[in-house]
Amino acid sequence: MKNTFGHLFTLTTFGESHGEAIGGVVDGMPAGILINPDFIQQELDRRRPGQSKITTGRQEADRVELLSGVFEGRSTGCPIGFIVRNTNQHSYDYDNMRDTFRPSHADYTYQQKYGLRDHRGGGRSSARITISRVVGGALAKLALQQLGISVEAFTSQVGDIALLHDYTHYDLSLRENNIVRCPDREKAAEMVRLIESVKADGDTIGGIITCVVKGCPAGLGEPEFGKLHAALGSAMLSINAAKGFEYGEGFSCVNSRGSQQNDIFVNRDHHITTLTNHSGGIQGGISNGEDIYFRVAFKPVATILREQQTVNIEGQETTLLARGRHDPCVLPRAVPIVEAMTAMTILDYYLQNKATTL
Amino acid sequence: MKNTFGHLFTLTTFGESHGEAIGGVVDGMPAGILINPDFIQQELDRRRPGQSKITTGRQEADRVELLSGVFEGRSTGCPIGFIVRNTNQHSYDYDNMRDTFRPSHADYTYQQKYGLRDHRGGGRSSARITISRVVGGALAKLALQQLGISVEAFTSQVGDIALLHDYTHYDLSLRENNIVRCPDREKAAEMVRLIESVKADGDTIGGIITCVVKGCPAGLGEPEFGKLHAALGSAMLSINAAKGFEYGEGFSCVNSRGSQQNDIFVNRDHHITTLTNHSGGIQGGISNGEDIYFRVAFKPVATILREQQTVNIEGQETTLLARGRHDPCVLPRAVPIVEAMTAMTILDYYLQNKATTL
Amino acid sequence: MKNTFGHLFTLTTFGESHGEAIGGVVDGMPAGILINPDFIQQELDRRRPGQSKITTGRQEADRVELLSGVFEGRSTGCPIGFIVRNTNQHSYDYDNMRDTFRPSHADYTYQQKYGLRDHRGGGRSSARITISRVVGGALAKLALQQLGISVEAFTSQVGDIALLHDYTHYDLSLRENNIVRCPDREKAAEMVRLIESVKADGDTIGGIITCVVKGCPAGLGEPEFGKLHAALGSAMLSINAAKGFEYGEGFSCVNSRGSQQNDIFVNRDHHITTLTNHSGGIQGGISNGEDIYFRVAFKPVATILREQQTVNIEGQETTLLARGRHDPCVLPRAVPIVEAMTAMTILDYYLQNKATTL
Amino acid sequence: MKNTFGHLFTLTTFGESHGEAIGGVVDGMPAGILINPDFIQQELDRRRPGQSKITTGRQEADRVELLSGVFEGRSTGCPIGFIVRNTNQHSYDYDNMRDTFRPSHADYTYQQKYGLRDHRGGGRSSARITISRVVGGALAKLALQQLGISVEAFTSQVGDIALLHDYTHYDLSLRENNIVRCPDREKAAEMVRLIESVKADGDTIGGIITCVVKGCPAGLGEPEFGKLHAALGSAMLSINAAKGFEYGEGFSCVNSRGSQQNDIFVNRDHHITTLTNHSGGIQGGISNGEDIYFRVAFKPVATILREQQTVNIEGQETTLLARGRHDPCVLPRAVPIVEAMTAMTILDYYLQNKATTL
Repeated sequence: MKNTFGHLFTLTTFGESHGEAIGGVVDGMPAGILINPDFIQQELDRRRPGQSKITTGRQEADRVELLSGVFEGRSTGCPIGFIVRNTNQHSYDYDNMRDTFRPSHADYTYQQKYGLRDHRGGGRSSARITISRVVGGALAKLALQQLGISVEAFTSQVGDIALLHDYTHYDLSLRENNIVRCPDREKAAEMVRLIESVKADGDTIGGIITCVVKGCPAGLGEPEFGKLHAALGSAMLSINAAKGFEYGEGFSCVNSRGSQQNDIFVNRDHHITTLTNHSGGIQGGISNGEDIYFRVAFKPVATILREQQTVNIEGQETTLLARGRHDPCVLPRAVPIVEAMTAMTILDYYLQNKATTL
Repeated sequence: MKNTFGHLFTLTTFGESHGEAIGGVVDGMPAGILINPDFIQQELDRRRPGQSKITTGRQEADRVELLSGVFEGRSTGCPIGFIVRNTNQHSYDYDNMRDTFRPSHADYTYQQKYGLRDHRGGGRSSARITISRVVGGALAKLALQQLGISVEAFTSQVGDIALLHDYTHYDLSLRENNIVRCPDREKAAEMVRLIESVKADGDTIGGIITCVVKGCPAGLGEPEFGKLHAALGSAMLSINAAKGFEYGEGFSCVNSRGSQQNDIFVNRDHHITTLTNHSGGIQGGISNGEDIYFRVAFKPVATILREQQTVNIEGQETTLLARGRHDPCVLPRAVPIVEAMTAMTILDYYLQNKATTL
Repeated sequence: MKNTFGHLFTLTTFGESHGEAIGGVVDGMPAGILINPDFIQQELDRRRPGQSKITTGRQEADRVELLSGVFEGRSTGCPIGFIVRNTNQHSYDYDNMRDTFRPSHADYTYQQKYGLRDHRGGGRSSARITISRVVGGALAKLALQQLGISVEAFTSQVGDIALLHDYTHYDLSLRENNIVRCPDREKAAEMVRLIESVKADGDTIGGIITCVVKGCPAGLGEPEFGKLHAALGSAMLSINAAKGFEYGEGFSCVNSRGSQQNDIFVNRDHHITTLTNHSGGIQGGISNGEDIYFRVAFKPVATILREQQTVNIEGQETTLLARGRHDPCVLPRAVPIVEAMTAMTILDYYLQNKATTL
Repeated sequence: MKNTFGHLFTLTTFGESHGEAIGGVVDGMPAGILINPDFIQQELDRRRPGQSKITTGRQEADRVELLSGVFEGRSTGCPIGFIVRNTNQHSYDYDNMRDTFRPSHADYTYQQKYGLRDHRGGGRSSARITISRVVGGALAKLALQQLGISVEAFTSQVGDIALLHDYTHYDLSLRENNIVRCPDREKAAEMVRLIESVKADGDTIGGIITCVVKGCPAGLGEPEFGKLHAALGSAMLSINAAKGFEYGEGFSCVNSRGSQQNDIFVNRDHHITTLTNHSGGIQGGISNGEDIYFRVAFKPVATILREQQTVNIEGQETTLLARGRHDPCVLPRAVPIVEAMTAMTILDYYLQNKATTL
């Protein structure tokens, strides 16, 4: 089940960067959900290349076609197949990659694993294949909306430019007002300038995306190996260029004490809640009804517009200069992907949790 | 499959802290592997309570009994069932927890999810249930040994005391020479002093475990959703008290450039390798033959020996003072668990990878 | 997941005929179900060897020990581990099987697959390992009882002695009044005589078990590959010695016409039902609320008390005379196993069906 | 995983009879296999409607488009997405089915399960969706060819017209010489006449398909719940209109003795084989190297061209007269589907078996 995500709500994907189409199958979509194709397309538009001066110049409309599972505007409970045609490939940009391995890309490992590979644009390892995730995530969001659950991600750090406060200090809806998807206007402007400067150098830069789930009921998460944060971590780490995941206080909690980290339970208006939320909304792998939040680290994109030393398929040392159109920083376009993977995970666990009792 | 880990090599576990026994079933153990029961017991001894002054005082021999799947000293390919009897429960220590929720434990979330819970010692959410993981991991290690693959974890940080260098600077075998499982003798002594001091305060502290896999062949990892690092991340995050995971450069890479992060391929004596290993031995979700390394953040244990404010099952605010025997810091005993989860993951992916070609 | 059955309600089993113990783990048991250990033991007693003159003489009490997942008499939603110790092995009876393959047993195929095998009593391929299924099935039945769903199997044919009518003509509770588990007293007596006669010849005989599920709501079954009857078929065919499965009219319908087979819908007292039930309670892979019924064919046991020609592990032709204690006909003891597999399947699909809508 | 088939080689399908397209994703196709698109299309042509006077008149070219996973004529090991556009829908033929349940179809059960349904042509429950299976099966066959494994199914019975001998008496390649796909020319002619006669009555008829796998190595099949014949049975029972499955001697063995059924091992030219093959090539759930053969019973198609009594969605009794174009007998077109499901199962288990040893 290499290319399938989830348990009860699942997404199976296919496609390569320069193949005929990217697509997939969503299985387990609850029946009776209103399917708004415009919303799905809007989500894709947030991910699409060529959307701003700090993303790749590849121009793709990325129009999604839903092929099944929807009848008279509602999900039927049957699988939803979909495709997005590739239209703007410049495959000749990649001819020099046919026999040469790009450093820190998946060229070498695919060649070692499969004995052959579609080298054009990175083939299956291209970030272009995350299109399918955004479609799956948009469908999941439509279901979560009915449950009053929201998923919002944003860029919280690019290089050394980081938000000063935690997510509760920002109006997250503002993240869509700028091209780097950061809810703080001034920091956003700094981030854009940094990305432009790095791009001018022919280089790339990484950063951190923070994601927040609000309205999630208590009880989601399956011990022992289906802990909710483990599922979220796995989902995030499956995104291209992700290098780390932490939830709640994450790595920073290692230097505090239990007495500082524990979240005290209180009763507020006949509702049990916690005074603090160091736990990140998950305790023992199960949601506790507080906000769920986590952070994902993304490395600088491996494709740089500088000549690099490498080896070819015969093992001879050579040099490579990337052509093609590339992102200097993945974060702006990764925000909707983080949201998509989160939405699918939460919906999947919501459905799983229904089997807890008869 | 809430309590099952893995795909082709799987571990299914059961048991509660104060129940009859902890146990599990390993399925998919390759046939014909020499099974050394002493080795399995040694791995359990590394995890067992009461092993030093900085671990819980609960005294358990934790003797494992293999019930099937081994014949005349070798694995038969059939499932290996095993149990470890609980013998030293002090269930009365937990009577005050029956109706009261310990802060930042799983008491509240289990109650919300299931409508009832075994409160004794945390029941199923207790770290005691990781016994089964250590048994599964020991079996996986026996198979990996035949493949020349080693898995070594160690404590690299406790509170603010951290190793100064990366793992390549240490003889990792030395980690077993001290009770905190850190390969640097002086840092280990500092860590122990810190834990003792925190314990004397009735408080707890967190830290970081680093894990290194050597000898792993290229080709392990299954795109798109079975990326090797996503599987490792999920495995680590399933361990009690884990709050974060990063591999290769992890979070620290967000502030460097692509030109600094990329690992240049070179040919060394007819063998393709990389000049650096910022990637952590995994590119595009697939192992590249270099060392795999990653770090796991653990929070301070939630059980502190101080009175804490909380609520009870009726929602009334109350206070709770933990009794029982508890670890002031989980790291020393978590090291073998990190290794176990890693070993099982690597073996599972090794077996999966065999299906790549006919 | 070779040794795991089910999706949301799962049973993972281990054990060999002459090993330490038979056991397993039930995961996904809904929380809050009253667990009656006596009922579980009664179900095991229906399966246990030595229960009558027409079953094997191996004497085993088959006492089950539940090790987890139950607290104060109720299921907690956590995995239920259990073991049944083997106590009455006569392993020396099987010494001649160490290097020689019994015809139509799994000795040869296990040897070919795994390169080694536990030959004692058939090892993992022994019908003794169905103990775990009966335990899992008993737990499933306890949950189904709360839903008003019953599962009743019975011996409907032994050799050429077959019931004359379909299941609706019999009081199925009478099946437990005789040792062959047939609800027709006279046919039961004939079947017993036939089995005794075959046994006296040192030979064995097969038969058919019919199973009926009453009270199953409409909606259980998951297209496209999770059709309810396909799941039932797979479950039945996983039972030792099963050679065929049919539901509803089964094989006999091939010679009738659509106009004869179709089940006409009618409205009876504001309840949609069908005039006939040729479909066997399942249409399009989904239960329709009518009785579900199906039949399972069992071959004559392969172990006969006559000398047979065969080959040994070196490929040399030789002869083999079985020792040991064996069943001349599996059906009486297979009835509770058929019920167990059915109960687990129905409960699993009941839980899966809860995810159909939000 | 409702719409996914298999474990390591998987097929996930989508599509409805009158939707945009039928399609799917094959995951786990071994890398490096030559992909012959003409062969895939030929397999689809064997299934396509309108191919003869005894199949439905719906005219569909059923052209398959492979969208990914193939590069320069070979499989890459990445998922193969594909679609077949629906072009010849006559949805108005089904307007009377919007609110009325066809007897013995899935209309009622889908409505009960999902609360809504795509009624046009049966929607997801239509046999048209088996297109995806044939594509998946064709890909599996391409891999099996490299292993020297063949899969051949044929019509062995229609109504009361049955082949007189077992499969070994026929040249199975002759099955494609007639429109009913029976290897005996005279019996084929009789079957065609019977189907024509039934069709003229506005009625339908069932039958039996036999399938034979040759060249399968010993060792395929995974105890305890992954027995090869259980997987085959589940695969066959997932085909529309299938009502029964038996392998080897199947139901007919219940009236013979163990001494008659057992397959004696012999050594023929340094090769262990069996004198007879009552077992059907599978012992203990694992292939033994002999031919695998089994039979599948298909009911008469539920759609008859006669007025039938039924109820509508409000529960009112009414009548229904089917329009549309329908098969009077599914068998001729089901033969390639049986082969497809078998080929996928065998390949899946071949790949699983590779994990048996290191």
